[in-house]
Amino acid sequence: MEKYDKKGDVSYTLGTTLTFELLLRKPEVATRIYIHPKQKRDATYEKMRALAAKANIPFITNNQKIFSLSSKDNVMMIGEFQKFQSKTVPHGNHVVLVNPSNQGNLGTIFRSAAAFSIDFLAIIRPAADAFDPKTVRSSMGAIFSVPFAYFSSFEEYQSFAGSRHYYPFMLQCSTPLHKVSKNQPYSLIFGNEATGLPDSFLQIGTPVRIEQSSLVDSLNLDNAVSIGLYSFLEQSH
Amino acid sequence: MEKYDKKGDVSYTLGTTLTFELLLRKPEVATRIYIHPKQKRDATYEKMRALAAKANIPFITNNQKIFSLSSKDNVMMIGEFQKFQSKTVPHGNHVVLVNPSNQGNLGTIFRSAAAFSIDFLAIIRPAADAFDPKTVRSSMGAIFSVPFAYFSSFEEYQSFAGSRHYYPFMLQCSTPLHKVSKNQPYSLIFGNEATGLPDSFLQIGTPVRIEQSSLVDSLNLDNAVSIGLYSFLEQSH
Repeated sequence: MEKYDKKGDVSYTLGTTLTFELLLRKPEVATRIYIHPKQKRDATYEKMRALAAKANIPFITNNQKIFSLSSKDNVMMIGEFQKFQSKTVPHGNHVVLVNPSNQGNLGTIFRSAAAFSIDFLAIIRPAADAFDPKTVRSSMGAIFSVPFAYFSSFEEYQSFAGSRHYYPFMLQCSTPLHKVSKNQPYSLIFGNEATGLPDSFLQIGTPVRIEQSSLVDSLNLDNAVSIGLYSFLEQSH
Repeated sequence: MEKYDKKGDVSYTLGTTLTFELLLRKPEVATRIYIHPKQKRDATYEKMRALAAKANIPFITNNQKIFSLSSKDNVMMIGEFQKFQSKTVPHGNHVVLVNPSNQGNLGTIFRSAAAFSIDFLAIIRPAADAFDPKTVRSSMGAIFSVPFAYFSSFEEYQSFAGSRHYYPFMLQCSTPLHKVSKNQPYSLIFGNEATGLPDSFLQIGTPVRIEQSSLVDSLNLDNAVSIGLYSFLEQSH
């Protein structure tokens, strides 16, 4: 057992809550669960044990060594899982992240995508690693709920995504979010934290912007995504 | 010169961009600017030098020692400033954070509050430290644009805030955000990341919730604040 390897096939949920989410939402990718000798045998533990037994996932206790994976002292449980991606691109509403670079942001976007029942998250490389234990943690386990896949280019994503309405979020020459007509199924497209979307996206669908004061350069990426998701969802009520 | 002291009177902007924001938005609290010997004498540098000269803030070069404050190698400029708070509570629209615990979230909320031209940010203790260099960094300098103050209780804030419309954001027994009538001036109130607002806030103004799926426990705090701000602002268009 070693530290997380970005190029490897497995990653880890550090902590009981995340490991619970893994067993509940995506048991088919879980390979084993490590239990700290001091983990309490409480109701949560028993529920997780039952979930794991049902999916034939071994519970391994008395292995303190693997807890070196976590820098926090209070991690009592670690789940190991095979990295996974959605093999198909479902219909419905998507979020597309073009070159997101921050793991914390990416995790939080998974969380918001789950909160607002988005059907698919597309991530265009180069991009932050969705499987890094830090991303998994900041997703609060939502990485196990939201279907997602990596693509090597926006065009590759488009070729799978079928006929839909594209809304690139960009500050250049765009329509304010509250004035844009919101049609389904949609793909909300967001650029890199530092650079945003390139001008070429002005040719794709309906460019839209979240109006903001000149006091800031931009909103935080995950905040912009949440506003976009909320606004499109609100319109459908 | 030592590490940042939470109980001390001064804090620091680590990096050129943040230090620029300090000089531009809040020169009256800046006490000195430290320049790394390798800082380029470019147009930005000259602009900052002029801003500092105008406000009588010393530029101190050749002092590598203070760069131990920053764990990053590429920090070329550090600003030192006196901690400050708004002495009055202005009219207009407010965000109230009850016991926020995460510095990154707090900084990002400053950034969104500046983006959406909020007039005042109230922070109810116990709470994360707005002056911690990490918070300052995650605010992208917006801490120098948005008037704010700490209060020892919500009641203390209320006694200063005057007549206004209160909207506590909570998942218990509340009205969906898109259905609530939005009146100005407003105070949008948000609870702690882990625990939310206590039930006592059901008695205050109009409790409101951001509808979300059962796949997640809640949205990230700064994401919830941004959605609230955007939604109230959209209504006023």
